[in-house]
Amino acid sequence: MRNRPPTIGEYLLKKLESYDIEHIFGIPGDYVLRFYHLIEQSEIQHIGMTREDAAGYAADAYARTKGMGAACITYCVGGLSMVNAIAGAYAEKSPVVVISGAPGIKERGKDALLHHKVRDFHTQQRIYDEITVATALLDEPFIAFNEIDRVLDAVYHYKRPGYIELPRDMVDVRGTLYRRPSTGGRVSDPETLNAAIDDAVKFINQSKNPVILAGVELHRFGYQGKLLKLVDEKRIPVVATLLGKSVIPESHPLYLGIYEGAMGRDEIREFVEDSDCVIILGAFMTDVNLGIYTANLDRARSIYATSEKISVRYHSYETVMFDDFIDGLISPQLKRRKKPNLAWALPDAAPFEVKPNAPLTVERLFKHLNEFISDELAVIADVGDSLFGAAELRIHQHTNFISPAYYTSMGFAVPASVGAQLSTPNTRPLVIVGDGAFQMTGTELSTTVRYGLNPIVLLLNNHGYGTERHLLEGDFNDIGCWNYSCMPSLFSSGRGFHVQTEGEFDEAMKTALAETQQFTLIEAELEKLDRSPALARLAERMSETV
Amino acid sequence: MRNRPPTIGEYLLKKLESYDIEHIFGIPGDYVLRFYHLIEQSEIQHIGMTREDAAGYAADAYARTKGMGAACITYCVGGLSMVNAIAGAYAEKSPVVVISGAPGIKERGKDALLHHKVRDFHTQQRIYDEITVATALLDEPFIAFNEIDRVLDAVYHYKRPGYIELPRDMVDVRGTLYRRPSTGGRVSDPETLNAAIDDAVKFINQSKNPVILAGVELHRFGYQGKLLKLVDEKRIPVVATLLGKSVIPESHPLYLGIYEGAMGRDEIREFVEDSDCVIILGAFMTDVNLGIYTANLDRARSIYATSEKISVRYHSYETVMFDDFIDGLISPQLKRRKKPNLAWALPDAAPFEVKPNAPLTVERLFKHLNEFISDELAVIADVGDSLFGAAELRIHQHTNFISPAYYTSMGFAVPASVGAQLSTPNTRPLVIVGDGAFQMTGTELSTTVRYGLNPIVLLLNNHGYGTERHLLEGDFNDIGCWNYSCMPSLFSSGRGFHVQTEGEFDEAMKTALAETQQFTLIEAELEKLDRSPALARLAERMSETV
Repeated sequence: MRNRPPTIGEYLLKKLESYDIEHIFGIPGDYVLRFYHLIEQSEIQHIGMTREDAAGYAADAYARTKGMGAACITYCVGGLSMVNAIAGAYAEKSPVVVISGAPGIKERGKDALLHHKVRDFHTQQRIYDEITVATALLDEPFIAFNEIDRVLDAVYHYKRPGYIELPRDMVDVRGTLYRRPSTGGRVSDPETLNAAIDDAVKFINQSKNPVILAGVELHRFGYQGKLLKLVDEKRIPVVATLLGKSVIPESHPLYLGIYEGAMGRDEIREFVEDSDCVIILGAFMTDVNLGIYTANLDRARSIYATSEKISVRYHSYETVMFDDFIDGLISPQLKRRKKPNLAWALPDAAPFEVKPNAPLTVERLFKHLNEFISDELAVIADVGDSLFGAAELRIHQHTNFISPAYYTSMGFAVPASVGAQLSTPNTRPLVIVGDGAFQMTGTELSTTVRYGLNPIVLLLNNHGYGTERHLLEGDFNDIGCWNYSCMPSLFSSGRGFHVQTEGEFDEAMKTALAETQQFTLIEAELEKLDRSPALARLAERMSETV
Repeated sequence: MRNRPPTIGEYLLKKLESYDIEHIFGIPGDYVLRFYHLIEQSEIQHIGMTREDAAGYAADAYARTKGMGAACITYCVGGLSMVNAIAGAYAEKSPVVVISGAPGIKERGKDALLHHKVRDFHTQQRIYDEITVATALLDEPFIAFNEIDRVLDAVYHYKRPGYIELPRDMVDVRGTLYRRPSTGGRVSDPETLNAAIDDAVKFINQSKNPVILAGVELHRFGYQGKLLKLVDEKRIPVVATLLGKSVIPESHPLYLGIYEGAMGRDEIREFVEDSDCVIILGAFMTDVNLGIYTANLDRARSIYATSEKISVRYHSYETVMFDDFIDGLISPQLKRRKKPNLAWALPDAAPFEVKPNAPLTVERLFKHLNEFISDELAVIADVGDSLFGAAELRIHQHTNFISPAYYTSMGFAVPASVGAQLSTPNTRPLVIVGDGAFQMTGTELSTTVRYGLNPIVLLLNNHGYGTERHLLEGDFNDIGCWNYSCMPSLFSSGRGFHVQTEGEFDEAMKTALAETQQFTLIEAELEKLDRSPALARLAERMSETV
């Protein structure tokens, strides 16, 4: 008995556990019921969401903070409902494993029209080939364990989603334990590594005013500690991209703020663009990250290091690993600099003064909200002004800011809060979401009730697709009118507020922070055309190309 | 000026109008705003939904009744959110045109990381290649009009979805009017056609008890009139598949009911399986249609005719068009039969007797509901017992029953009701939906409020994923508890009822039918394990393979 190999379903669950996955998000369906039955008997808890896309968002957020996430759904009607969420995880490098049930191999007769089938039995896998880093169909017990290893290893290594299709008649079939010889790889070539570090160190040492531009890969690979060490030891100031926000505690004396080209604060843009040495670490050069190409970074003055590419000015270095390169920068050759004077970057220190009867405005609302940010809150921003406004919030801890800042898929934030809170139970999500996005996935608050979670949801109600109104206005930017503060009655739980003035908002936030047993939804009434300063700057640039 | 060719955007809209498309379903986004601006100036009305998948379902239902439907969304975050809905339209042959905005051709630099991009600029088109009959990227003005023609023609001809990607910098570019020479095709070879009809006519004439099994393609191709003529002139009894339900008015004296193998009524199953000549017209041989392969149809006693294949017993006939074949059967060679005695198939004629204080049960609820069915109602059934129970309802008109009976994607019905009602404004949707499906897309009721629609939504609340409980029970079949009858407060419109007894249900239905100005939601409280007789039979078969 002892040496009997596990079944394919058992092996898959054990492997997921080995990556520290404690929750799996999804919705059952007949093709996946047998595997669900196994999940129920395992150490992993199943979290039932209301929709598959929401399960995808939750698993994505979970992966961002916990290092790996998983979603489990049924064939096609489930898996194809999650395509957008997983595409977003691919675009923003989030390691999510998608496990899909499927018709049994024995059921797959030629042209058999089984329910949920689209064109042929491989349709779903081919679609996932486009949005994942690896896919596998577990139709062969002899290689099933190796296939599971291959997909999970790729997900872990590349921080991109992977796809595993498990036909229902294979769940209880025993696989073959057989260790495939390691193919090696993924180590730096020592000489190239030395050359790259020498080049970088000399360049930085010669520079007058270097700055680090820290990006999302530092989150994904868990290199926040390395960044902090580099910044502290060498005293180089640091800015973050929008997608990388919160990669360093934002109260750090050497942290300046978000760099996002013309979208961001002028003094930060000038500091970065005037620097004679910009050290770009783990940042994607995306349009939103770069303020829709208003950023102005000169390759001749840049070091660029990610998991995919290492270059120092015009020199590219191959077979150099990202982490080895960062470690190299921390080495003694790189000189410790004098403490820079960064007082100019300090945000307005004067405490926010609430004008109790003043109607809410976006700009003042975010300044006000900043007063409530603490270590216990994880900010989860949806897209549009929820994101642009939140860029200015001061986040205290690592990875306490989550947002689809590159792929910018509306409706991410509420479902993501479920995954975020389950991955770090000692923080409370503060969700910032617009009315349009809330109408897409806001009812996922139901899931927070089921599992005893307590997000604070700040719903910015500007009555329609606000960002688009500033690009091109038309009736199509209008949406239906909801009484969002009814949500608690719908779910028999939670607190709802509808606030119109600064005083009302202040009181609602204080109540929300005090009531930790359930969700609170605060609907903040805003003028239809109100917007953050960042959106004003962005709209000016974007409306040219719409 | 007069001979100046239109822009690509203008041409596309004109072509959609030529297919009688009067509404387009979708959600705007920056990559599609310019085209939205054109829609607003056109004869076509834009219908803003809350989610893209809902727009897909609405366009699908619209296409099923109006002959062609369209959805318009932004790049990736929009298009990839609609994959499941369009996959369902593919599986069930619904002619939906998907128009996606996209980054401008001039913006597509090598490796440019524009927001909403997943892997490369063709990711979305490749995914749609898997779930549509034709795709086109309109990146070249010289061939853009021909490409539009090609996709729309394929959608119209094959009754499957098509995909058109319109980069935003091509919307206002003038195309080239150039008529591609017709490639011919799509006509029957006269001699083969004659041979096929001779073969079929002889076979039917010799048979003792022929029966027509009518399927969904008769809906899609608009051949309901041909079917009626065939049945009336030749006096051959007719049954329908589940997906084909309502293809003939169900009060027709020669209509027997739904054939779905062991899932359906025994007397109908026996009649069909004992027939010495089953004339299968436009039916897909799917598992749900055939009662999960409990159907027992013998090829030696069958004629099988669809748009894809024509065969008479073991003889296949190529280059024979479906409509020519049906017309051939209507010809005088096929003899008119004696009026068959079908009294045995008549449903129980005794009026339903309401027991005012009796708790609701699934079986009696559908019998009761049958009393309320009229020509003015279009039944839109979601999946699970909403579908199985609804199979027994007597539908009076053509195409007054819509359901994803093959692809069986939960959450179809509420959004579909928007498309169905806009396509046939003189009918009122009666939506039948379970609680699990309602949690997925029920908030689309918001859209019915925006556009003054008035569906009656009968929500069968059996507290979880009811069908699955009968296959394999576990906590994963539970869902959150909602106060569904709160929906009217959320939208400041509509009526909500929570009914537990037959008397309460009776009263709620009567009120709903009398109040035509807004939606009515009736939440019917059911026992967790209650089920229709059809589901009982289905579960018995399916639980063997789960």
